Amino acid sequence: MIIDPRAGLSCERSDTAPRPPGTFELLATEGTARAGRLWTAHGPIDTPCFMPVGTYGAVKGLVPDELVAVGSQVILGNSYHLAHRPGAALVRELGGLHAMMGWSRAILTDSGGYQVFSLRGLQRIDDDGVDYRTHFDGSAHRMTPKSVLETQAALGSDICMVLDHCPPADAPALELRRAVDRTTRWAELASELRPTILAPTQLCFGIVQGATDLELRRAHIETMAALPFDGLALGGLSVGEPPAQMHATMHAIAPLMPATKPRYVMGIGTPIDLLEAVAAGVDMFDCVMPTRNARNGQLFTRAGKLNIRRAENKSDRGPIDPECGCPTCTRFSRAYLRHLHAQDDPLFGRLATLHNLFFFHAWVARMRQALVAGTFAAEIARMSAELASAAPEPAPQPTPPSGEGDVPPA
Amino acid sequence: MIIDPRAGLSCERSDTAPRPPGTFELLATEGTARAGRLWTAHGPIDTPCFMPVGTYGAVKGLVPDELVAVGSQVILGNSYHLAHRPGAALVRELGGLHAMMGWSRAILTDSGGYQVFSLRGLQRIDDDGVDYRTHFDGSAHRMTPKSVLETQAALGSDICMVLDHCPPADAPALELRRAVDRTTRWAELASELRPTILAPTQLCFGIVQGATDLELRRAHIETMAALPFDGLALGGLSVGEPPAQMHATMHAIAPLMPATKPRYVMGIGTPIDLLEAVAAGVDMFDCVMPTRNARNGQLFTRAGKLNIRRAENKSDRGPIDPECGCPTCTRFSRAYLRHLHAQDDPLFGRLATLHNLFFFHAWVARMRQALVAGTFAAEIARMSAELASAAPEPAPQPTPPSGEGDVPPA
Repeated sequence: MIIDPRAGLSCERSDTAPRPPGTFELLATEGTARAGRLWTAHGPIDTPCFMPVGTYGAVKGLVPDELVAVGSQVILGNSYHLAHRPGAALVRELGGLHAMMGWSRAILTDSGGYQVFSLRGLQRIDDDGVDYRTHFDGSAHRMTPKSVLETQAALGSDICMVLDHCPPADAPALELRRAVDRTTRWAELASELRPTILAPTQLCFGIVQGATDLELRRAHIETMAALPFDGLALGGLSVGEPPAQMHATMHAIAPLMPATKPRYVMGIGTPIDLLEAVAAGVDMFDCVMPTRNARNGQLFTRAGKLNIRRAENKSDRGPIDPECGCPTCTRFSRAYLRHLHAQDDPLFGRLATLHNLFFFHAWVARMRQALVAGTFAAEIARMSAELASAAPEPAPQPTPPSGEGDVPPA
Repeated sequence: MIIDPRAGLSCERSDTAPRPPGTFELLATEGTARAGRLWTAHGPIDTPCFMPVGTYGAVKGLVPDELVAVGSQVILGNSYHLAHRPGAALVRELGGLHAMMGWSRAILTDSGGYQVFSLRGLQRIDDDGVDYRTHFDGSAHRMTPKSVLETQAALGSDICMVLDHCPPADAPALELRRAVDRTTRWAELASELRPTILAPTQLCFGIVQGATDLELRRAHIETMAALPFDGLALGGLSVGEPPAQMHATMHAIAPLMPATKPRYVMGIGTPIDLLEAVAAGVDMFDCVMPTRNARNGQLFTRAGKLNIRRAENKSDRGPIDPECGCPTCTRFSRAYLRHLHAQDDPLFGRLATLHNLFFFHAWVARMRQALVAGTFAAEIARMSAELASAAPEPAPQPTPPSGEGDVPPA
């Protein structure tokens, strides 16, 4: 079953009275899972919600109308990239990120910290921030809890993330604890500075660290919950730990996060990750997978991942999935898509991205609708069974080119 | 003045009774210039008409709906490319080029000869055809007057071109005459074979050669006019001769072509080329310029060509042209386009292509509407003045990548 990810979206309806930005309505719960609605200055977001990544102020190759057509309610922009290309001051001069790219729905931006911390050999972290050289031109800059809010104020983000310290999954216990403490201090500072930097309509989320150390996570949630954030995120997941451990951590920790605020797990995930996260009580997710994999020829279907390059698609007049209602499947065949991919036509990446985003949005919308209908347990059992019966993973793809969220190796 | 290139297009109206494919209605003339309507199995084409190039079964990056939105009535496919990628038999198996790419308006295909003759060192021409090795994989093939019709029959083109021999602009007189004679024999053979190869609804155009030798051209027009083609093309123009000589040749020769059939000059041109061609009495044109230049950052405006990379566009919140009604100018700023280009986002090429095609279609539609209104002389005077007052050419662009129509150097 592939549902229409646009069906019933609050941002497409006019019969719901707008609420002040930051309002989070809990609409349904089943076990630890929940459905809700988060209000922003650019409209409501029905949760659980998947957020496509638009690193540089565009979901690569797509115009805003197409994002609306596949059911995107909110997109993510990368502050590190935008701060340097085209520059936060220029984005502000152009009217903010929404005006620049012509997107009228919500935008969440990360702090840029994750990208800067990944600039191995090009950064030096201290207790007040991080000095770094960009991967663009090696120019020297400093990032602080204050500067990332200033950047996001300039971008005009609806949801701003504080600066946190996200260590690698295999960091020793002491480094992990120091990163948590630093994240706390930076969050406290961000809370203080926020009223003077962000507009009153811009939301601000805190970030919980602690890797897979449940005690550390629990303690950090308590600390962060006491600060006046509009939502809390789990950072430091999907950074190298095994998926099962990541899922177990979400299940143990997400229910401990304040129930009255939206919960966001950063940087996930696969369809199974999303299933586990929603079941654990998470509301928001972002991941480059649907967009990046699309450009590399990998399409998501109910029957598993489809590599469009495979010979059996060569003369296949059928769509990627005959039951899919996306703008690609309703118009184009596998054979044509394979041809476009082989010719490196930019139309391929565009059509593949539309399909994959539709798939991810429909996957999450299915859980959201089941929560509202009170049939979540049965629905995720069916969804798990579908994943289990899907074809095994195809051979690994070649390392994809950089460009979304990531920073190339220094 | 930028008019709406879609306004009044016959292919968008239902109040004109369809006529049999091949019917050419002359609707208005002024001096040597004319406006007409050519009927195909996929609808009418209002002439004069510019045809975008979709080498591999796609105008790079665009879906058919977007071509409709900018006023494309007919697109050109390249037989040489399609015959090898994905292969003519496969295109036939997929229902033909229209079905494969989801385009319901007319398609013209070249014979592929021009590309094969440009495979320097990889081809050998004889009186019956040409042996060649592809630039794709070096595989050996033979192209004949018969094989190019078979390819175009498989593609399902609405307008098929015969095989001709197009020598370089600087070819010696003897080679030129031999090429004309060979083109004639091949055209005669094509005329004979056509009923057994092409569907009755597929049109077939002959090609006149003779470079800038007016005597040779006149004689060849007489010969070709006696054959039962649905239209005649001028080949061998814009192949290296100076623009003024090309224009003079068109003015001397086009009026001698049969008035009752559509006239097509292959591979042109610039806005001034199109002005000269329409004034000379030509009805159809194709050129990679608007699409290829778009991807390289060059945008056509009433004020001349705009290089989006230039620093003055960096913070320009205005559109490419404030009077342009294209899907790009009505939604996006120069600053955003410059940013997308700098980030190599595929959205840039798409938006730039839409703008340039809109510009070319509007440019030709303006002449077409003036012809119908009986104001052509005054209109082209205004258009010439606009071109003359436009900014001088910017510095030359770097050599663009291949991909549309051309074959990379062997």
